[in-house]
Amino acid sequence: MSATTNTTTLISNLGSLVTNDPSRGSGGPLGLVEDAAVVIEGDRIAWVGTAADAPAADTVHDAQGRAAIPGFVDSHSHLVFGGDRTQEFNARMSGRPYEAGGIRTTVAATRAATDEELAANLAKYLREALRQGTTTFETKSGYGLTVEDEARALRLASAQTSEVTYLGAHIVSPEYADDPAGYVDLVTGEMLDACAPYARWIDVFCEKGAFDGDQARAILTAGKAKGLLPRIHANQLSYGPGVQLAVELDAASADHCTHLTDADVDALAHGNTVATLLPGAEFSTRAQWPDARRLLDAGATVALSTDCNPGSSFTSSMPFCIALAVRDMGMTPDEALWSATAGGARALRRQDVGRIAVGARADLALLDAPSHVHLAYRPGVPLVAEVWRDGVRAV
Amino acid sequence: MSATTNTTTLISNLGSLVTNDPSRGSGGPLGLVEDAAVVIEGDRIAWVGTAADAPAADTVHDAQGRAAIPGFVDSHSHLVFGGDRTQEFNARMSGRPYEAGGIRTTVAATRAATDEELAANLAKYLREALRQGTTTFETKSGYGLTVEDEARALRLASAQTSEVTYLGAHIVSPEYADDPAGYVDLVTGEMLDACAPYARWIDVFCEKGAFDGDQARAILTAGKAKGLLPRIHANQLSYGPGVQLAVELDAASADHCTHLTDADVDALAHGNTVATLLPGAEFSTRAQWPDARRLLDAGATVALSTDCNPGSSFTSSMPFCIALAVRDMGMTPDEALWSATAGGARALRRQDVGRIAVGARADLALLDAPSHVHLAYRPGVPLVAEVWRDGVRAV
Ligand SMILES: [Zn+2]
Ligand SMILES: [Zn+2]
Repeated sequence: MSATTNTTTLISNLGSLVTNDPSRGSGGPLGLVEDAAVVIEGDRIAWVGTAADAPAADTVHDAQGRAAIPGFVDSHSHLVFGGDRTQEFNARMSGRPYEAGGIRTTVAATRAATDEELAANLAKYLREALRQGTTTFETKSGYGLTVEDEARALRLASAQTSEVTYLGAHIVSPEYADDPAGYVDLVTGEMLDACAPYARWIDVFCEKGAFDGDQARAILTAGKAKGLLPRIHANQLSYGPGVQLAVELDAASADHCTHLTDADVDALAHGNTVATLLPGAEFSTRAQWPDARRLLDAGATVALSTDCNPGSSFTSSMPFCIALAVRDMGMTPDEALWSATAGGARALRRQDVGRIAVGARADLALLDAPSHVHLAYRPGVPLVAEVWRDGVRAV
Repeated sequence: MSATTNTTTLISNLGSLVTNDPSRGSGGPLGLVEDAAVVIEGDRIAWVGTAADAPAADTVHDAQGRAAIPGFVDSHSHLVFGGDRTQEFNARMSGRPYEAGGIRTTVAATRAATDEELAANLAKYLREALRQGTTTFETKSGYGLTVEDEARALRLASAQTSEVTYLGAHIVSPEYADDPAGYVDLVTGEMLDACAPYARWIDVFCEKGAFDGDQARAILTAGKAKGLLPRIHANQLSYGPGVQLAVELDAASADHCTHLTDADVDALAHGNTVATLLPGAEFSTRAQWPDARRLLDAGATVALSTDCNPGSSFTSSMPFCIALAVRDMGMTPDEALWSATAGGARALRRQDVGRIAVGARADLALLDAPSHVHLAYRPGVPLVAEVWRDGVRAV
């Protein structure tokens, strides 16, 4: 351990520890260490190993045999929004007609909200996610759809997380309903100029009724020219060009991936783009599940994320996504855990999160359970008992 | 309000309140009151209405706009057990063979556990359920399968909950594998005598490979003669006589009801037996969902419960069961909420729980949400923020 003035904390008596470091433990991607301990120095991991070998530290925290995992990396959410869509959900699930609703409802409510309301709402959901073990959050704009409202959303988001995505191209703004080309010009021009300072990523909803492949290419290419990194909503509701465009443009992630051709799977398996699966969306809209098994067997890298948003997936629970992925998407409990942590980190091109290794951020979730397998074995149960983020006990 | 020496507590500023009293609010089974308040006196509800009309009380608790519901009534669990079946679950969900496993694994571990271990385990899971809003718990024996071990399980359970069920007839005990008739004699004779003092209910797993209709009738009839009330595991894995036997014997509940003929549905609709559906079991075993819609449309009374047990449904989360029932079993969010509260109370033939009405037990769950609909709208998210049980803040 290096000689610095940072204080050190030993988390001892961990029943099991998922490191996502394949050189650890009995092998395998999870690098599972039994009877483990971790030393934190400042905001980083300084030492990892078995408890019996642990060095001394300034303070000792007894984990009481709990299992520990890297904090979840939720690489896809839409949490800068105003309003509520409870009535719409209730009507849909009760088989009743509902005339209003959809993304436009949230756009109107978001525009009408004050900065303070939007920031408080975002803080509430990020806090809720943190309590469930999520220590790295991505979130997007996309409910403003004007230059001012998109820039405002990103400015507010960037005050609360470093993973901020410009999604002016969520849907064509209602004001441009008759001029989608004009809206693409806005998204790639004045809106991009206003938004780029606050964002790391650019995203587009490439889907029938939203933006086609040519529009998506123009939008992501413009963003890259401004220094933003591409990611994409692809192949959610139907087959389409999104996934292959993502690989072509070296996007960090193609998100949803529900309708894939063999060529799409092949592109993901041979490219540098993560397939991010969002089972909360399929759960909440009663849609077909993405086939994680097919992607994994082909050699693609898979991430799991919540897609938390008030319309199609209002869950902030990564454990819930793990349970669904295991039951309905062909993932093993180990694969699902990896995808919700290391997979999310890959989808954000981050090396410092999603794993417990010397030099990585000290982001851990401790479970009221002897094993990470309980996240799938005990669906719906709030098992996250403690969360450490940047070396500090946050929950 | 009556003049007693009990102190009174006003819970004010409830955004919405599900009372399950159809005379309240805008009608409908939930008796939903907006901008509500409740007065608790001792362990009972003393007053219910809109906040503007609330009487004075000794203390006032500000609910900060949270929605409130009656505490969940979980009428079916198996929580007197020892051991752990993580490896078996992991193998099943990973597509790997697993030779051991099954109920017999838990029977061996339960017999080997000390009283203190079993009591602590039960307390842990009841506490976990309480944190998720469950204020009335039923639990069963069924992992002892000897006179001493069944009686011990029920004695330990009765120290922690009043809803205790004798399930000596879970499976034929391994010692009687070649003499199932002898085991039925034991269950209806010496074991019943030893267990009856600790139990309110008697139950039997009526299924191929467990107990057939004639055996189930003999077991439930013997229990009734000893003053126990019947309930039954029926029609879970296959069609069978269980549901119609339940109605014939005036069982409080037929539990599972996954495989039902039209005659079964008709019997439930016209009898006095609740159909208790256990979606956690179908989730965790990837089985066919029970069809709640069919039962409701026929006029049957439906309850939802967790079936919490370490083998086939290791969830203690009633909100999770609600979310599954809405997504996959055809229930509306309102119906699912009713079934998880008032439905569970009917399945336990209780008048004092499952509703918020003057004289009922002061058992409430307050949600970090403006509406009970969020329990389905926000799957997996731990929304229960406060729990009041017997008039006391318990969480
Ligand atoms: Zn999305
Ligand atoms: Zn059961």
